[in-house]
Parts: sequence; structure tokens; C-alpha cells
Amino acid sequence: MRFASDNRAGVTPEVLAAVEAEAAHPGGGYGEDRTSHRLTEAFTEVFEREVTVFPVLTGTAANSLALAGLCDPWGAVVCHREAHVLVDEGGAPEFFGGGLRLVPLPDDGPDADRIDAAALDGFLRTAAGGRNDVHQVPLQALTLTNLSELGRSYTAAETAEVAGLAHRAGLGVHLDGARFANAVAGTGESPADLTWRAGVDVMSFGATKNGAIGAEAVIYFDPDRATGFERRRKRGGHLLSKMRFVSAQILGQLSDGNWLVRARRANEAATRLATGLAAAGLASTGPIDGNELFVRTSATEAARWQAAGVECYVDESSGSAPTVRLVTSWSTTDEEVDQLIALAGGDPAREEKA
Amino acid sequence: MRFASDNRAGVTPEVLAAVEAEAAHPGGGYGEDRTSHRLTEAFTEVFEREVTVFPVLTGTAANSLALAGLCDPWGAVVCHREAHVLVDEGGAPEFFGGGLRLVPLPDDGPDADRIDAAALDGFLRTAAGGRNDVHQVPLQALTLTNLSELGRSYTAAETAEVAGLAHRAGLGVHLDGARFANAVAGTGESPADLTWRAGVDVMSFGATKNGAIGAEAVIYFDPDRATGFERRRKRGGHLLSKMRFVSAQILGQLSDGNWLVRARRANEAATRLATGLAAAGLASTGPIDGNELFVRTSATEAARWQAAGVECYVDESSGSAPTVRLVTSWSTTDEEVDQLIALAGGDPAREEKA
Amino acid sequence: MRFASDNRAGVTPEVLAAVEAEAAHPGGGYGEDRTSHRLTEAFTEVFEREVTVFPVLTGTAANSLALAGLCDPWGAVVCHREAHVLVDEGGAPEFFGGGLRLVPLPDDGPDADRIDAAALDGFLRTAAGGRNDVHQVPLQALTLTNLSELGRSYTAAETAEVAGLAHRAGLGVHLDGARFANAVAGTGESPADLTWRAGVDVMSFGATKNGAIGAEAVIYFDPDRATGFERRRKRGGHLLSKMRFVSAQILGQLSDGNWLVRARRANEAATRLATGLAAAGLASTGPIDGNELFVRTSATEAARWQAAGVECYVDESSGSAPTVRLVTSWSTTDEEVDQLIALAGGDPAREEKA
Amino acid sequence: MRFASDNRAGVTPEVLAAVEAEAAHPGGGYGEDRTSHRLTEAFTEVFEREVTVFPVLTGTAANSLALAGLCDPWGAVVCHREAHVLVDEGGAPEFFGGGLRLVPLPDDGPDADRIDAAALDGFLRTAAGGRNDVHQVPLQALTLTNLSELGRSYTAAETAEVAGLAHRAGLGVHLDGARFANAVAGTGESPADLTWRAGVDVMSFGATKNGAIGAEAVIYFDPDRATGFERRRKRGGHLLSKMRFVSAQILGQLSDGNWLVRARRANEAATRLATGLAAAGLASTGPIDGNELFVRTSATEAARWQAAGVECYVDESSGSAPTVRLVTSWSTTDEEVDQLIALAGGDPAREEKA
Repeated sequence: MRFASDNRAGVTPEVLAAVEAEAAHPGGGYGEDRTSHRLTEAFTEVFEREVTVFPVLTGTAANSLALAGLCDPWGAVVCHREAHVLVDEGGAPEFFGGGLRLVPLPDDGPDADRIDAAALDGFLRTAAGGRNDVHQVPLQALTLTNLSELGRSYTAAETAEVAGLAHRAGLGVHLDGARFANAVAGTGESPADLTWRAGVDVMSFGATKNGAIGAEAVIYFDPDRATGFERRRKRGGHLLSKMRFVSAQILGQLSDGNWLVRARRANEAATRLATGLAAAGLASTGPIDGNELFVRTSATEAARWQAAGVECYVDESSGSAPTVRLVTSWSTTDEEVDQLIALAGGDPAREEKA
Repeated sequence: MRFASDNRAGVTPEVLAAVEAEAAHPGGGYGEDRTSHRLTEAFTEVFEREVTVFPVLTGTAANSLALAGLCDPWGAVVCHREAHVLVDEGGAPEFFGGGLRLVPLPDDGPDADRIDAAALDGFLRTAAGGRNDVHQVPLQALTLTNLSELGRSYTAAETAEVAGLAHRAGLGVHLDGARFANAVAGTGESPADLTWRAGVDVMSFGATKNGAIGAEAVIYFDPDRATGFERRRKRGGHLLSKMRFVSAQILGQLSDGNWLVRARRANEAATRLATGLAAAGLASTGPIDGNELFVRTSATEAARWQAAGVECYVDESSGSAPTVRLVTSWSTTDEEVDQLIALAGGDPAREEKA
Repeated sequence: MRFASDNRAGVTPEVLAAVEAEAAHPGGGYGEDRTSHRLTEAFTEVFEREVTVFPVLTGTAANSLALAGLCDPWGAVVCHREAHVLVDEGGAPEFFGGGLRLVPLPDDGPDADRIDAAALDGFLRTAAGGRNDVHQVPLQALTLTNLSELGRSYTAAETAEVAGLAHRAGLGVHLDGARFANAVAGTGESPADLTWRAGVDVMSFGATKNGAIGAEAVIYFDPDRATGFERRRKRGGHLLSKMRFVSAQILGQLSDGNWLVRARRANEAATRLATGLAAAGLASTGPIDGNELFVRTSATEAARWQAAGVECYVDESSGSAPTVRLVTSWSTTDEEVDQLIALAGGDPAREEKA
Repeated sequence: MRFASDNRAGVTPEVLAAVEAEAAHPGGGYGEDRTSHRLTEAFTEVFEREVTVFPVLTGTAANSLALAGLCDPWGAVVCHREAHVLVDEGGAPEFFGGGLRLVPLPDDGPDADRIDAAALDGFLRTAAGGRNDVHQVPLQALTLTNLSELGRSYTAAETAEVAGLAHRAGLGVHLDGARFANAVAGTGESPADLTWRAGVDVMSFGATKNGAIGAEAVIYFDPDRATGFERRRKRGGHLLSKMRFVSAQILGQLSDGNWLVRARRANEAATRLATGLAAAGLASTGPIDGNELFVRTSATEAARWQAAGVECYVDESSGSAPTVRLVTSWSTTDEEVDQLIALAGGDPAREEKA
């Protein structure tokens, strides 16, 4: 029962097939190849507009390179206090950004780990109302994550509200889309509506958690923002000679709408799991927008699950009633889900019938 | 006729098979997986001693991360004036090294692009004999490349001489082994003799040019030197969640001695090509130690080759008698080689009989 | 009535005399001179132990250079959310620290802007109890400020409590002593007790606000901590050829106990002002530990003061009842103080008699 | 006999008087003060055009901050192989430039340490004729030094030739003017002709070696180039709260043409010394353009001088016939000069009569 992380899953057949097809022939180096050009076309279709696309290897690289383009070394990027860039990337944004500062919103409302528009508004007003001279670190960008770290989505309208506030304060807007496919699948809104139409300037498009080997893309909706990106990518060691294999992975994922098929599967598994656990008396701590859920249980119960083979993350800082994180993926089977529900004392069969 | 670069070649069957096998099952994240552990064992066997192994994605990342560990931000790394780290990595060593300086040897002798021991000795004596106070940038490391950029190898004895001079001056020693397999195949000396037994402290082991998709490894022969590496790698965005796929590629290459089989094939093709071209009156500019050769011809002839479908790099800065670089790879066929020889006016058949 | 900042004041006669004396003769360059050596002796006496002393020009440079020595580029420095390094140094700590992160204590208790030991303890336990792997930014140092930004002092016991918690968690301890003289004068405790005996590893000793032209010193209590400092200082452009003039300023200040005489004068002026204003109905928002006080008044009253020639900082983010910051200096006269008290409706004469 | 360095000299009376005058009154902080505004006016007059002026403390800071504004972190600055920025600033340009690269001209002609126009032209053509893609470090700026490290000057025409080549290749042009006063005094050409009229975009104007305590100024001839400078200066810890004292030093130096009077005195002393030594059989190694001369003598003779109290730099790397550097300053007296001439076996009296 693998619910530890969607990046523990294997690789989808379509990604593997794309790599195999690429391996069958030689190709141009450093992203100057047909597959990479086709990738740009594919993204143009997905986003309903011309885009500038830069494949990279990791989400950390994608986020850090994108933020470095939005913010001076002496500037700051506003983020949520639970943002992956802040808590899980080992200082990479500061490194790529030449010492820029990440500023978590001091109070960002009651809404799980999504940026609260009212809290952001208040913060930007205070920051703008206070001193803004050479002694301060000027706010220059905002980054938001969809799905959020805790599995919540922003709708297009919610994204537009947050991005609008940022733009009014003169900040560029970055979207960390490590699980963007799950957000699209969950909201049912279009990639365009969730990004550039809502004011996103640049995004990290995640493929790895959705079944790729290791492939992400930085996508600029305004090509002018991309100045310097190629230099930064090369300088960060993220320009592969055989970049075409990275492009191939994402292209394989995008083809035939596979990326959304896979994301939907992951989301459905999470919903099935949440429903089953709730019936067993273990309600999720929040709505299920994508492929993550959190339940609060006893330390004993959590230990029992793990002993029974459930791979999951248990937040032990919560003490005797820890929060358990359960992440589904494109490869999660109904059997796995039902096995866990049964373990928790639920009745998967009933769910099946309902 | 593909002689442009060994990184244009495809992927060897054994690498592809290793990726496919890895894709068939889930695995631990971020290098904490069985395949990665087996990779360390495989390298331990290859180098006849315990080693600390860190897979990364690109040679640029491998070199830059390794050098950052050998040199303070205010220090300098001595290199050849043709070194890849200096002329082909877009400033990555300076970036990862926090602003360290690359110092090309001012006069490094007549020997193609290998570091000349006498020239190095003179340079280190001058540098040491001059001022070395807080106003200067202290020399802290040396990097050498085997095969060199121009396809020349260092023997174990030559490596030991250069590394010995560096150590006596207090410098750490890094080996850029983007084509290390070709050097081992060409010299016939053992990996251990060519590295740690000769005084190399840390190396970049290249797999990409030898048939991987994108996989290199930084190998520390002294684990104490590795302090901070994991932090740097994460911070540079080079820690993949599915690192096991990178490890798998290299492991597939190392298994059954494949890496040397492939490198030998590339070297043989280069020798065959050089012999044939020489017979046609186009002598190589230097000895063929590995899988690269350089011939000087007329601009007209170079253009004729390219028109006939020869992919190769023509150094136009050489004027009307340009130098043509020809690189073979594991995938180069005798047919391709003979086709080019014939095009150059040679007689491949005669070679065959000889 | 100059209460805007102690760095607006002029230069004390003893500092000017020291500069003039230094100007009368040539001297060694780059800190290799008799005056600089005498400065180290003077600090050795002040701190009752051997110390390593590095003069620099600004408090920002002193703090940033000191923190860079305590924290890796991928590490973090814990500070108060009002700390000068965080809110007033334009990102200098991140710059000198190669991208290190400043982490303000998330909830640091009710105690103005001093680090609350209980809050720090809780934070360090959580941070240590949570994940601490390669994905996080490890906490490596703590910085505290005495006097604090809001003019509050730490006693030796309070310093020891905070520093002790930091050390137990493996953090180095830095003290920002831009107004250290005022803290010594205010607490009546010895420089040694307020620093190394309480666990401070390195401090920034401020002279500028206490009557120098521009002179601070980084003081290491453990010489081993100073490794790399000279390289960093040179590299930051903070090694003056005529460093002896910087040393002379501080030496002039330290001679004959002048530094404490001047600081006491500033503190007395603040106390006199606070007492007078309180009698006029304007109580300070907190205790007066040094040379700063804060009073809350109406926007109208604040405007009236400024119109009458009072130089002071009015925090307009507080709305219709703004907080007014009043800073005294070595040059503040009783006349200035009494003039402001009178303006506020108080009776300086009464104070005089009391 | 002090001929070691012009930064060993004391402080001119006019600089000291300016500091004393400034100390007599309070003033605005961080360069927002009357003295600093008057400094800009003074420079406007000196350069016959509006200029943007930023005082800083050291030449290293001035050069590094200026270069950081001309060159991206992934770019390169072309310089002479003897340039101060390369050999004497401890890596500061790389630090402030975020890892930029200094590229010494590979062969810069026979002309002492001035940039040779023909050599520069050849280098820029090769660099431009070669590859210039994402793998290279693009050339973005040129820096030249007037007086050069070896005491040679560029005329306005020579400056224009070098700067013109740089501009044609798309490079910004920086002038290191640590001894600019001596260059103006020596060439007899105007500050405007030697800088912006000749194509200099930004310069470091040195005051320290000409009698200040510690004061330099970065001067932009095109205000648009100055973007970001204030942020960089603050972030580097080079914005003093009492910046007015730095401005005062330079203003005192500029007033009444003092800066040129002092520089002329230093230059005359050097010429007198060179003439006297030549008459004694010790010809200078090159023309005397300013306040530095170099003579070649025996190691025994050099030792004899030093034993007799001559402070000077002896380049021992030259072996048994070392080069001795003799630097004069505003404070060098004819007596000192004649004393050394006599020591060398010359006849100062004869010089006097001639």
C-alpha cells in the first residue's frame, strides 16, 4: 500500500515508450532537436497560446530558475509559509537567485496552505505603507502552488484574485505546478484559465510526479520574461546534451491527453480513499481537491498501519494524535485503496456499491 | 556519417534495458533506493576501493559541484586553457563555487591540451614564490581532463606527476572524466591507477557520452572530501526524486564491463578512421588516444564533406585551412567510417586487408 | 531638537583628536600598523581576555561578515523579526553569506523586540523535532542585538539563557552590538559578562552611533572562529589601505573610558526625556534601558512637534495614534531635552528640582 | 625615505580640515546631506557634465560595484593581466558580480601594463569570430586603469581607441582611476577628455592615494547605467550612515584644485627621482607618466637601500637583478628624493642646478 509520495511511483508506459522511441535514433544536442520543438507545439496547444518552454530535470531547478528571473538578488519573493520552495528545496531559490529572500506571509488566514487573498492584501498594503528605501529588501515576486503542498487547489478565480493583488503591488507571479495536472483534473478548469488568463507570468509544469522519470518544464507566457533563462539554466548545470530525452518524456505524457488521464486516476483514488476512511470514522482534515489527503489518528493506529505495510508520512510533531499524509498516484490501484480502508476498519465493498 | 559529437548518439541497449527494469517497480526516493546502493558497490569494484558516489545529471553539474568542494569562494582552481570547465560550461564552476576563479595555466607547453608537468611546476613555483597574502586569490585546486578536450589521454604515470605537483603545492586534485571510459580503454590502465593511486581526490565519471541518457557520477576517493556535497547537490536542484533511474543507467553501463566494451568500440572506430584518412593524405594533427581526431584540410574540402552528409565540427577560426573535429561513439559503424574515408579519397578496402 | 537617530550626531572630540593624531604621521597599510595593534590591546583589556579584532566601516558589514563565518551558504541564522540584519540591511547578510537564510522567530513572545527564551526554546525543539534532512535549510547560528532595535537591553543572565539554548541546539551565537556601549552603561554589567562569559562567540562592536565617523569592529572571542574572516573582509572591499584611521577612531573612543562616558550621557538624556514626558502624560511604551524611547501620541501632536523643529521618526503605520521614536546621543543636551518636554506640555524645571 | 606606496602617506591638511568642519555640525544620514550634494556639484564641474556620484570607502569596492553593474553574473570582464582588479582585490569583483569572470587579455603587446589596442582588437575579433552560445561566458565589459598599475598613463586618444573597440564589440567600459589625479596631472588633458568624451561609461575616482583617509567615488556618466547601484552598495555594507564624512574628504580634495596640486607634486617628485637615478646610472624601466618608477638593480644594492631606510617594494621574483618599485606621493619631499639619489651614488645638487 504505497501512499508515501507520488514520486515513489514508477514510470507510465507512455513515458517509457517515448524514451524508447527517442533512443532509437540520434538527435540534436542541448534541446536543438525535433522532439523539443514538438514539445513547444504541444504546450502551445495545451495553453491555447504561444509559450516559451524550457525543460529541466527537477522541480527544485524549475522553481529556482523561474524565481531568479523574477527577482533581483537584493529582492524578495512572497510565498506561503508551507511552500515547497521555502521548506523543501534546501535553499535552492536563494542559491539560484544570488541571495534573494523568501518572505513567508506572516499571517495567511485559516485556509490550509493556500495563500489567502485577504491576508495577502493586508500584507502588501503594510509593506507598501511602510518604508521602502535602500535599507529594505523590496518585494518583487509572488509564488503560489497549485495543487498546494497540502493537496488543495486554487480555482481560476482564486488564482486571478491572488495574482491580481500581486500585480497591483508590482510583483511578478510564479506558479509552482509540480501537481498542476491534478489541479486541472480536480478543478475541471482549463490550463489557460488556471495560469496566464489568471495572471500567472511563469510556471513550473511538473511531469515527474505524474509518471515521468525526471522531467519538468518552465513555461513563460510572456517571452520577454525569459531573458537570461538559458544562461541561468546552463550555468546551473541543467542543460542536458541529450535534452531530447527530457522533452520526450513530457511529450509522451501530453500526447493523447495522457497527463490528465493519469492525474484523474490519482485524484479518483484519493477521493475513494477519503470516502472509505470517512465511513470508517476517519474524516479528512480538509476537502480532497487532488491526490492528497490528511487524516488525524492515534499514534498507535498509525504504527499499526505502517506495520501492516502502509507506506505513508506520519507527522510526529503532532504528538499523540499525529496527522497522516496519504498520497495517491497514477499507479494507485483500487485494491491498494480498499486494502487500507479495510485496515482502518472500513468497508470498501459498501463504497463499491454506493 | 555522424562524427559531430558522442553526445549526439543514442542510448545503448543495456542502458535502456536498465531504465525499463527500473520502471517496472516502485523504489525509494532521492537516491535512497536499492539501485543506487548497488551502484556504489559496482564503483567500489571498478575502483578497487570504497568510494563515495553521487549521481548527477550533467557533466557540468558534476564538475562544478566537485570543484566547489575543493575550493573556497575566494580561491582559485588551476586548469588548462582549453578545459571544458573554462570554455564550455557557461560559468557554472564560478556559480557553484560562489565566485571562485578559474586560472588557466599561462603557458602550458606544446602538448596539445594536456597539462604539461614542467609548465605546471613553473607556474606553481612562481605563484608560490610571489606574494600570497589577503589581496591575492589563493590557488586551492587543480582540475585535469582525461581524455582531454582534444581527445588525448594521460597515463597513470602522467596523472601522478601532475597530481603530485598539485598536492605538493597544497592543491586538491579533480579529474574531469567525461570520457574516462575512453581513457581507460585507450591506455589499458586500470581505473584505480588512473585516479586515486595517481593522486586524484575526486572525479566526475561520465556516462552520457558513452551511451547513457543523462547520467554522471561524482566519485570521492576520500569520504572526508565529500562534506557538504549533498547540501550543494540539493541546493543546485540536482537531487532527483527518482534518482534511481540515473543510478540505473550507470549501473547498466557498468554491468558486464559494458562501459569498456562501448568505449573500445568508439576508440577503434577513431583509429580506423585516422588510419584511413592518413592513407588518403589527411594525417591527424596528433596521436589518437581515444575517440576523437582532428585533421586539417581546405575549407572547400570541409564544405564538400558536409554537403555529402558528414556531421562534424569545423573550426572556422583556422581560416582557409580549417581544422575538422571528428568524434566517434559507441554507435559508430565501420560502414560510416569507411564511407568518410572513401569520400576523402582513401581506400577503406585496403585498410580492411591490412 | 535632534532625536531622529544617534547616527545623525557629529563626532566626539576624542575621536576627532585621534584621527588628527593619526594624520600627523605615516603608517603601515591594511591594518598592519601600530594603532591597529594597540586597538587589539585595548579590546583585550575591555573584555578581560585575548580577542581577535577586525575593524570594518559599517555595522552592516560587521554583522554580515560575522554571520557568514557562522553559517554555511545553505544554512540559516535565527533572529528576531525586528532584527536590524533582517529589516534594515538591504539583504547584506544573504549577500555575504552566499545565500544563507535569515529565519525570524515565528512567535517570540510579548517582550518588545528581544528574543524570548521560552519562544526560542519552543522553536528550536520544533525545528529539531521535525525533519532535518538535505531538503531543509539547517539552523546554524543565532543573532541577538543588545541594545535591541527598540532600545531594550539583555542582562548577562538573559544573554546566557538565550545563548545557552542556541549552543545546545548546535548554533553559533552572534551579538549585534551597534549600541553595545549603551547596553553596558545601562545594565552596569561588564563587557565580558555581557558577551563571552554569557556564550557569545562573535560580536559586532559599534562605535559609529557613539561618536565615531564610521568605525565598527568584529570581535572574536574564540580565534578559531575567525578562519576566513580576512579573506571575506578583503573580498567585500572592507579592508582599507589606511585602516589605521578606523582603528584610531575606536581607540580614541575606548581611551580613558570615553566610550562609556558618552554612552552614559546618551542614556541619561533618554531617561530625563522619558521622565519629563511621562509627567506630561506621555508614558513610554516600555522601560528605558538605553538611549531610545517610544511614546504613543496623536498624529496631530506628532505633526506639531515636527513643525516645532523636533527631528524624530514617526511610525505612520500605527494610524491616528502613531508611535514616535526618540533617540538621544552623546551630543544631546539637557536644553534640547527640556525644550521637547516643554513642547509636550511638561515642566522641565520640576524635573530639575526633583 | 618613504617610497613604498602612496597609500602609506598621511592625510592632506585640506582633507583633515574638511573632516573637522563636517564634525562641527550634525547632518543627514546615508548620503542625504548637503556635503554629499555639493560633492556631486563639484564633480559636475570637474567633468563638465552632469554626473551621478556614489562615494564609497575603498578602491576595491568602487571597482567591484562598478563592474557588477556592467556585467551579468554569467558574463566576463576583459582586463589587463596586471590589472588591480585581477591581481590585488582578493576576488572582490567575482564576489560583487555574483560569479562573473575576469578575462585577462591573452597577449596584450609589449607596452608595459597598458591595454594594447591591437592586441585587444585581435582578441575581440577572435572571441566574436568563435562560438558565442549558451556554453560560453559572454564578454560584457572592459576595464582599464589610468594610471596603470605600473604607473603609465593613457592619453585621451589612447583611451578613446581602446574604449571604441570595446563599444564596437558591445562591451561597457570602466576606468579604474585609483590614480586618476596623477593621470590628469601627467597628461595635461582634461578629466572629461580622459573619460566620457573618450567613451568611458563609469569610473572609480580615487582620493585615498592622493591624501584622503579613505574615500573613493563611483561616477556614472550615463545615469541609466547606475540602475541597481544603490541596492548593491547598501547590500555590500558600503553605505555609511555618516557618509557625509566621506563626501567631505573628496570635496576638500577637489576644492581649489587641490587634487591636481597634490598629484602634480607627487609626479614632480617621481620625475626628479628618475632623473637623479638615471644620472647615477639607474635608468627607469619605462617612461615616467605619473608617480611611480621602476629601476632594475642588484639584490645587494636593493638590500643596501633598505638597510639605509628606504621603504620600497623589491620584486624578488626577478632574481639577482630585482626590480625596485618607487612610489612618490603628495607628501614626498625633495629632501627624501635627493637623499635616495645620493644613496644611489647620484648628485642631487647637479640636478638642482640643471
